[in-house]
Amino acid sequence: MPVQPRTPQGVLELLPPQQLAFQRMLDTIRRGFERFGFLPVETPVFEVTDVLLTKSGGETEKQVYFVQSTGALDQGHKPEMALRFDLTVPLARYVAQHEHQLNFPFRRYQIQRVYRGERAQKGRFREFYQCDIDVIGKDSLPLAYDAELPALIYGIFNELAFGRFTIYINNRRLLKGLLESLGIEKQTEALHEVDRLGKIELSEVQAKVAAAIGDEAKAHELLKRLTEPFEALASFEGNETFKAGYAELKQVYETTRALGVPAENLEVKLSIVRGLDYYTGTVYETFLTDHPKLGSICSGGRYDNLAEHYTKSKLPGVGISIGATRLFSQLMELGLVAATEKATAQALVLSVEKDLALEYATLAKELREAGLNVEVYGGDDKLGKQFKYADRAGVPLAIVVGSRERAAGRVKIKDMRVSAEASKEIDVPRGDLVSRVKALLATSPTP
Amino acid sequence: MPVQPRTPQGVLELLPPQQLAFQRMLDTIRRGFERFGFLPVETPVFEVTDVLLTKSGGETEKQVYFVQSTGALDQGHKPEMALRFDLTVPLARYVAQHEHQLNFPFRRYQIQRVYRGERAQKGRFREFYQCDIDVIGKDSLPLAYDAELPALIYGIFNELAFGRFTIYINNRRLLKGLLESLGIEKQTEALHEVDRLGKIELSEVQAKVAAAIGDEAKAHELLKRLTEPFEALASFEGNETFKAGYAELKQVYETTRALGVPAENLEVKLSIVRGLDYYTGTVYETFLTDHPKLGSICSGGRYDNLAEHYTKSKLPGVGISIGATRLFSQLMELGLVAATEKATAQALVLSVEKDLALEYATLAKELREAGLNVEVYGGDDKLGKQFKYADRAGVPLAIVVGSRERAAGRVKIKDMRVSAEASKEIDVPRGDLVSRVKALLATSPTP
Repeated sequence: MPVQPRTPQGVLELLPPQQLAFQRMLDTIRRGFERFGFLPVETPVFEVTDVLLTKSGGETEKQVYFVQSTGALDQGHKPEMALRFDLTVPLARYVAQHEHQLNFPFRRYQIQRVYRGERAQKGRFREFYQCDIDVIGKDSLPLAYDAELPALIYGIFNELAFGRFTIYINNRRLLKGLLESLGIEKQTEALHEVDRLGKIELSEVQAKVAAAIGDEAKAHELLKRLTEPFEALASFEGNETFKAGYAELKQVYETTRALGVPAENLEVKLSIVRGLDYYTGTVYETFLTDHPKLGSICSGGRYDNLAEHYTKSKLPGVGISIGATRLFSQLMELGLVAATEKATAQALVLSVEKDLALEYATLAKELREAGLNVEVYGGDDKLGKQFKYADRAGVPLAIVVGSRERAAGRVKIKDMRVSAEASKEIDVPRGDLVSRVKALLATSPTP
Repeated sequence: MPVQPRTPQGVLELLPPQQLAFQRMLDTIRRGFERFGFLPVETPVFEVTDVLLTKSGGETEKQVYFVQSTGALDQGHKPEMALRFDLTVPLARYVAQHEHQLNFPFRRYQIQRVYRGERAQKGRFREFYQCDIDVIGKDSLPLAYDAELPALIYGIFNELAFGRFTIYINNRRLLKGLLESLGIEKQTEALHEVDRLGKIELSEVQAKVAAAIGDEAKAHELLKRLTEPFEALASFEGNETFKAGYAELKQVYETTRALGVPAENLEVKLSIVRGLDYYTGTVYETFLTDHPKLGSICSGGRYDNLAEHYTKSKLPGVGISIGATRLFSQLMELGLVAATEKATAQALVLSVEKDLALEYATLAKELREAGLNVEVYGGDDKLGKQFKYADRAGVPLAIVVGSRERAAGRVKIKDMRVSAEASKEIDVPRGDLVSRVKALLATSPTP
């Protein structure tokens, strides 16, 4: 009995047309990263266990996949290696390990899969792509870099064309100063509730903040400030921390705009909090305007010290991350990433007569040398079957040459993008093949 | 005490300039695959254990990395998942699982990492990239596809420009028929020795074959045939299997030549054997002429049935594989993949005066909108330090604008590709920036 072929739970395995669309999306992201001069890094899928799990266990450790070879398994050893669960820990390890060979500020991008032992449920992946960029400074990192990341993200989502989107920015120092200035001491508790703004009713958030900090008046004042337009904060009499945060946020907003991000794609949103124990300055979130339920599709922020577990050097940074697998899977469900390009081949040379195999090879060679992606049908099946293959494969053009055409020095091109009834074969001189194929591909099909 | 940052043994982690060169190599390979209309597939890094290990244990199983989450570990479960050790088993599983949604002949490429618990030694990797292509037929697969693969490989190595190379082809059916026709029964034993041709002396091989089959005369006759030019075999009076194999090999050679592979890059080599229990027809190997010690850098062949463990459908195929990590690492040692392109950025906008930050952002935006990769120096460090950064980073051009240039509507461009002494700043009108930068990048630097 054959083994039932199946994938493990919680992975996204795509059919070729969808894989092609996904690949094009990753290519666009990569091009966007390189447009801003970021450098590629790849790290091994597994890390030494004690390097990966420097923080003391808890929730994270339960989600880790350990790796061991058969030998170690038999001997009952504890696993020496584990799969990375994000790209941040490997980055910290990488920068600390190669510190003296890197050029700071170090600008790296990394597009790889990460692994989490999530409970199996819809939308939760155990294997998924992350696309991360970070700028890491040595000792210090100028604020100008905080403006680069939203500008870069704008360029990418603009090119991906998934519809309208807004990049929201905030500043954790501003929040901290605001809370201090309002005399709110339970900051973590307050921010935990503030994070719900926009997800539940304002009055509800206010009640929760009041309950958390035990002061209704202060809760009211806090939420009044956080929901006013950003400009209104200019007149707020805050402490030094507040003023520094406010100035940072203003500068990041203005520089990002100067880097080419239109006003409708960039907004200050004072309720953004993000990871409470990690970010210290600028924070980012990104939403698709017409699909708010997807949540933030691209988030990140500024942190004080990347690699304290691995080095004594102080390495502040700012970074942002796109969860490509989750995003693609959601957009696929919404029908927003139709696989428009099903084939990589732009033309298929049909095998009309078996004896002309070398002629077909030569035709394909000429088209490929002109930079075109070309497939040759390998068998001597009936033409009907070959056309059906071309149609299913989604190849735009079929090249048809029999001995009659060959003798006459002609080639027929059939446009497969229009319906079989509407389609006509175009009869061209053999010598014009390459230029006619290129011209046809450059135009939309006209039925 | 910080944890010592380190990678597990047996992985290749690259610094950014080398990673960039490696990425460009993978891009070239991918473009080469798509030039022939192959479709991308990616599979999860782990497979369900019983799906991955259908064959009964032995050597392979010892090299497998098992994967389990913390929970399963604590409970002492046997690992449910394991990391793929090649791309062939996942392909077989993929084709069997998605059989009814695929278009046959199914042409897939796959560029992913695979994992083997190798003993740690130089040149042996536990994690490495494979770049595989296969054409899978349903019930049958025409011979024409066997000629496509060497033509495609030629295109890729021609573009990679690692120096002279030869693709060697042979046919296992021809070998089988030849052995049968010579009355040699111990075929496996004989072929095992034949495989050494070219690695050790001919006389030694002949002695080994003679010992293996127990017949000196037959060993002599076999090696005479295998070392003659291919054409000489035309007159050999072999059985039907031999004749069929001979005709196949001849046709594959001729079609490959018609597909554009020059005679000096393609050769019939009758001693090529490859995996004894797997390949049944055409087999391939590829050697760099000036570096024969690297061994075959790209190998593969024709097989009868891809997925017998998962489906009753008969799925013959032909495939070839490039071991990209091993190849890259060897070429790096030979100095053949100098990282000529150290930066992704083509220009760096320097931060001459802090107050001009928005002007620098605008300059960068304009250059990026023109399709250029641009970085902005974020701090207000001294210019000397900024130039040093640009130099170390390998950015070709630096853009220098102070308030004087700004007032005069001018921009200075410094070519960083020439030595500091020889380099001159080029002073251009602000409006000509994009065109001058493009023109400079299109030319080699002249000191």
